[in-house]
Amino acid sequence: MTVRDDLDRFIASERDRFTAELRELCAIPCEASDKGALDGAARWCRERLRAAGFADARELRADSAPALVVAETGAGKRTLIGVQHYDVQPAVPLELWKSPPYDPAIRDGAMYARGVDDNKGHLLLRIQAVEAHRAVYGELPIRVRFLIEGEEESGSPNLARLLALEPELTRGEGALKEGGAIDSQGRPLLSLGGKGILYCSFHVRTMSRDAHSGGATHYPNAAMRLAHAFASLMDPRGRVLIEGFYDDVRQPTAAEAEMLERMPFDAQATKDVVGIKRFAFGRGDDDAKRASVFEPTCNVCGLESGYNGPGSKTVIPCEAAGKIDFRLVPDQDPDQIAELLRAHLDRSGFDDVEFSAEEGEHPYRGPADAPLVRAVAAVAEEAFGKPVVLIPSSGGTSPMWVVCNARRMANVTLGMGHPGAGAHAPNEHILMENYWRAMRATARLYTGFASQE
Amino acid sequence: MTVRDDLDRFIASERDRFTAELRELCAIPCEASDKGALDGAARWCRERLRAAGFADARELRADSAPALVVAETGAGKRTLIGVQHYDVQPAVPLELWKSPPYDPAIRDGAMYARGVDDNKGHLLLRIQAVEAHRAVYGELPIRVRFLIEGEEESGSPNLARLLALEPELTRGEGALKEGGAIDSQGRPLLSLGGKGILYCSFHVRTMSRDAHSGGATHYPNAAMRLAHAFASLMDPRGRVLIEGFYDDVRQPTAAEAEMLERMPFDAQATKDVVGIKRFAFGRGDDDAKRASVFEPTCNVCGLESGYNGPGSKTVIPCEAAGKIDFRLVPDQDPDQIAELLRAHLDRSGFDDVEFSAEEGEHPYRGPADAPLVRAVAAVAEEAFGKPVVLIPSSGGTSPMWVVCNARRMANVTLGMGHPGAGAHAPNEHILMENYWRAMRATARLYTGFASQE
Repeated sequence: MTVRDDLDRFIASERDRFTAELRELCAIPCEASDKGALDGAARWCRERLRAAGFADARELRADSAPALVVAETGAGKRTLIGVQHYDVQPAVPLELWKSPPYDPAIRDGAMYARGVDDNKGHLLLRIQAVEAHRAVYGELPIRVRFLIEGEEESGSPNLARLLALEPELTRGEGALKEGGAIDSQGRPLLSLGGKGILYCSFHVRTMSRDAHSGGATHYPNAAMRLAHAFASLMDPRGRVLIEGFYDDVRQPTAAEAEMLERMPFDAQATKDVVGIKRFAFGRGDDDAKRASVFEPTCNVCGLESGYNGPGSKTVIPCEAAGKIDFRLVPDQDPDQIAELLRAHLDRSGFDDVEFSAEEGEHPYRGPADAPLVRAVAAVAEEAFGKPVVLIPSSGGTSPMWVVCNARRMANVTLGMGHPGAGAHAPNEHILMENYWRAMRATARLYTGFASQE
Repeated sequence: MTVRDDLDRFIASERDRFTAELRELCAIPCEASDKGALDGAARWCRERLRAAGFADARELRADSAPALVVAETGAGKRTLIGVQHYDVQPAVPLELWKSPPYDPAIRDGAMYARGVDDNKGHLLLRIQAVEAHRAVYGELPIRVRFLIEGEEESGSPNLARLLALEPELTRGEGALKEGGAIDSQGRPLLSLGGKGILYCSFHVRTMSRDAHSGGATHYPNAAMRLAHAFASLMDPRGRVLIEGFYDDVRQPTAAEAEMLERMPFDAQATKDVVGIKRFAFGRGDDDAKRASVFEPTCNVCGLESGYNGPGSKTVIPCEAAGKIDFRLVPDQDPDQIAELLRAHLDRSGFDDVEFSAEEGEHPYRGPADAPLVRAVAAVAEEAFGKPVVLIPSSGGTSPMWVVCNARRMANVTLGMGHPGAGAHAPNEHILMENYWRAMRATARLYTGFASQE
């Protein structure tokens, strides 16, 4: 990277320290099941924020939920809320990792670790950018408030409750949300919304114990029950078959439709990332693009029953389990979708198929016509040297509804993930070059947002 | 048990030794994946047969397949072939066993161990019965030939090849097949046939790696593909949907239909064993009885894809795997069913769903009107004190087609399993009282078969 100015010079001079900090944060295995690691990561964030001048950085707690790290610094008319998280997706299957997920490794200019893209890299560079701003430009002309939760990958079940403890925490003029990416041509992707989610764990028990498959004429097979139940939820073309599922889907506004039109979509790169020749459900490239923004989904995350070891075992499994996430679009409501799902199963003869809704989040699409969006576009274009791409909504889910919906606040990503980053998958990684660019953009945003019309 | 005669006295006097031998045999973990254990069990059987007077007991081998233990003793006009096996089903899931599957435990008059019912108990009592016969009645008036294979639970893939090495091995007047059971009222069940099997392992790969479920609008989900493919094979009422699947199903003969009519079927006990209130597929009791004898099945033995750990992981699995066994009835041919299955998947748009046929065995229903069947009925009724039940075909599979079909030889079970024995399931066990009764019946059969009209 060419060093253009004092900001670049500062970032270059701090590279080793900033990189070491990122490795340190990524070495904490803060998956949802590891309470100790979550606590450790919260503490780490709090201390890092204090070191960056967030004197009041603290941990907000409710019962046994992971802490919400809250911190504020700077002064000015506008407040930018950094909605981030320190928890990560489970790293399994471990055998597919080329280097251990919690022993961050640098290879060919990339750092490999679980969570380095989603979301520890993004979280940390926003803090380091505050240091860079102060070192190069002086005090922040806006208030920057971080809300860093530890349950984002589990659907943020306690965030609304934690925020309700101090309602002023969501007062602001815009939210910088987790993540962010550039596309295969290096264009920064600015996502202005995210899908909601309903995450369900299914279970079916048909007998008190497994049976010899010689009895398969009359003994109920739990694996086949669940296969039938799952197959009943969606047709092979991707259409969800739950009655009423699409009733509350809001049609895109003219502005959103126009944004979609202008939005580039690198179909080939999108396919190459996972090595496919055609998109699922017979979707053409344009349809895949449209669907990625405006369509809800029904996705099987896991499925397990019976004997799956080597060789053969002739058994009728007495239980089966599975997991499905439904990504929702405005104005679908996760609670209502759960009710429709139950009704569908009952009506379809699957009243023995039980499920529990483990996550529920509302979708959120914020305004595009907002100072924050324009400010982010300007600094992202400058740092990455490419025009930005506005996306009405990403395929993923962030807890922006709970933060932004009451005030219809703008929310936007400003990040550095690349198409092959592998968030939620083995060998998750970031390109360090992008990390420094995103840090530059973010440091400049803290000034740019103050004056943006 | 009352001691009625010298045979009972001999069995009673040898109980401790015979029990110790059974524990020794059941302690060998001879699952298909454990080559060393299979070799150990073959050697154990060979030595045990030699000790029982089968001077020529030997191991017949072909390539790396587990040995077929072959042994013959006695003299007379008739030859009875004992078709047995020393391999067992995998013991997993281990956590459901109350005592370790390969550390045989005796509790409340029952012995618990993987394989004690299927089929080590049956195998051993037939050998011990030869000793009992000799001790009490003198030399056997028939030839008894054992064919003890080590791949029965894997579909006997090499048995035909091994038997072809020495065609005279299948020359005889009747075959005593593996297993055998009594029903909930203590009536010995004489099975005169078994279903065939086609065991398939399925695999589908939709992408080169897992992806974040935010892409579920356009990325193909392997778990849902397999759920759809499996669901397409059978309707929820248990009817197999593969075109041509039922074409070769032979209608029961008048004699078989009559046998079915006379065959008791304890629907309540059959349900109680696995704790169900109703049979699968909406079958009434009579229909369940008929189907268990004459209907083929499609049974999912295993299914696995994606993330199945605690909590949630929002992932699109790139691969899925599963196992299905089809139990076949005369005259279905496993090779042809595999072809029909492939055609069904291709025609239904599942050409990406791959499978390999890991086991294929023909069904076999032998004659009921045969001296062996009458002789077994007589000794079983005497030993268990109840009338026998003739079953045209069991739900399970034994490699009797390859042994019996060329000569349409009679085959029959004579055993001691009880309805809760748990073959192929955790906590497999036998009641020792039944073991001694079955040994008495078998010792008497060696004489009875010689003179039976």
